[in-house]
Amino acid sequence: MIKILVTNDDGVTAPGLFALVEALREVGEVSVLAPDHNWSASGHVKTLHRPLRVKEVNLLDGSQALTSDGAPSDCVALAVLGLVDDLDLVVSGINPNANVGHDVTYSGTVTAAMEAVIWGLPGLAVSLDSPDNHLDPLDYSAAAEYARRVVELMLENKLPSETVLNLNVPALPLDDIKGLQVTRQGLRVYHDELLVRSDPRGVPYYWIGGDPPTGIPDQGTDFGALKAGFASLTPLNLDLTAVGVLEKIRELFSDHPGG
Amino acid sequence: MIKILVTNDDGVTAPGLFALVEALREVGEVSVLAPDHNWSASGHVKTLHRPLRVKEVNLLDGSQALTSDGAPSDCVALAVLGLVDDLDLVVSGINPNANVGHDVTYSGTVTAAMEAVIWGLPGLAVSLDSPDNHLDPLDYSAAAEYARRVVELMLENKLPSETVLNLNVPALPLDDIKGLQVTRQGLRVYHDELLVRSDPRGVPYYWIGGDPPTGIPDQGTDFGALKAGFASLTPLNLDLTAVGVLEKIRELFSDHPGG
Repeated sequence: MIKILVTNDDGVTAPGLFALVEALREVGEVSVLAPDHNWSASGHVKTLHRPLRVKEVNLLDGSQALTSDGAPSDCVALAVLGLVDDLDLVVSGINPNANVGHDVTYSGTVTAAMEAVIWGLPGLAVSLDSPDNHLDPLDYSAAAEYARRVVELMLENKLPSETVLNLNVPALPLDDIKGLQVTRQGLRVYHDELLVRSDPRGVPYYWIGGDPPTGIPDQGTDFGALKAGFASLTPLNLDLTAVGVLEKIRELFSDHPGG
Repeated sequence: MIKILVTNDDGVTAPGLFALVEALREVGEVSVLAPDHNWSASGHVKTLHRPLRVKEVNLLDGSQALTSDGAPSDCVALAVLGLVDDLDLVVSGINPNANVGHDVTYSGTVTAAMEAVIWGLPGLAVSLDSPDNHLDPLDYSAAAEYARRVVELMLENKLPSETVLNLNVPALPLDDIKGLQVTRQGLRVYHDELLVRSDPRGVPYYWIGGDPPTGIPDQGTDFGALKAGFASLTPLNLDLTAVGVLEKIRELFSDHPGG
């Protein structure tokens, strides 16, 4: 029996996690170990300075899950290091917003999948490209179905080590999604602004505000695929070496021929 | 006049930050905006869910600095978005431990430099490869001198966009360091173990423990350079696309020829 760990960065009660659990039960035995609160935009965390607590909770259908006060990547480490035996694969999500472009360096959803790959397990991050400021509850069913398909392909095909898969799915009904494109990481355009306000005692405080980030929808990128109505699957590398500029930087910076 | 922002992930009072500030004053005007507490292994954070506070503090020599309750990457965003004008370059460190191999995905020091690059500024992370469990205060002077040299090279040579520089310096006297090697990111070997303990009420809690991580000292990698007595400079890319496996994954996973 295939054993799958599901985690996320929104917390164990998030509806996106439950949609993912339900879809992946068709593929194997699903265990959940997820944060007990929201860690969005938390990055890749390893909690070494304090101990972590783990509790049993129930998901929406009454099934058992584990939750921890650690970050998403801590949850993966806790599971791999002993709390969940014999894992075959780790899936993180479904995040209620896309993780595309530079988002992947901030994303708790993506770093949970990275942590799995560091421990030698296949890792997949799943996100829904929902509209900004949506009011209705999100429908995760199509994203969950795409996650299930990608997990089946991951189990059939051994991926190169160091490779994390990052899946983003349009917020459309399943039949309206045009298919799956394998893409490059695109370029995010952030519109952050600094807002200064005064507290009741006249002391200033700062919000990182501004419009939501946009992206350049080049063909072949995560943005381009989503914009064209496709689900986007991007392989990410844990080796961040800028190979293309290595020689140039070696010429400019190295003071030793062995470098 | 060149304007340099210095930040770190250990907090504004860390001796490594002050050593860096002193060395970079020989190159330009140095502003400090750094966290008010330690954020080690915090990853790349963007704080959007709460406002951030900024305070003036004094460094060891009485000079003024800014500190914030945000993460290292938040400090860079706050500076770039308005609190420090006309920046030319951002330098983060000096971290009291090496940031090599997969460490770079967890490192607050490295993600501060990444945040600078996302905002279009050159970014450098600086770390000292100190021995495990050292008892004496660390000597940051050689690492600070290497940081100064690399910053001068960065100012003379425009780096490709998307490139973050990651400098690691051996904990040796300046004259004993053999020079600077430009390297690839190496492979970390983590030895984490899960330790289970019971609190005074008999409830279990968990530590991520075990021996400190080691590395495989291949030639041409960050580990290899440090092991051989060189400072290591690794160019890192913010585009994490696993270019080498893109075609293979496209063959296996894509269900659409445009993908």
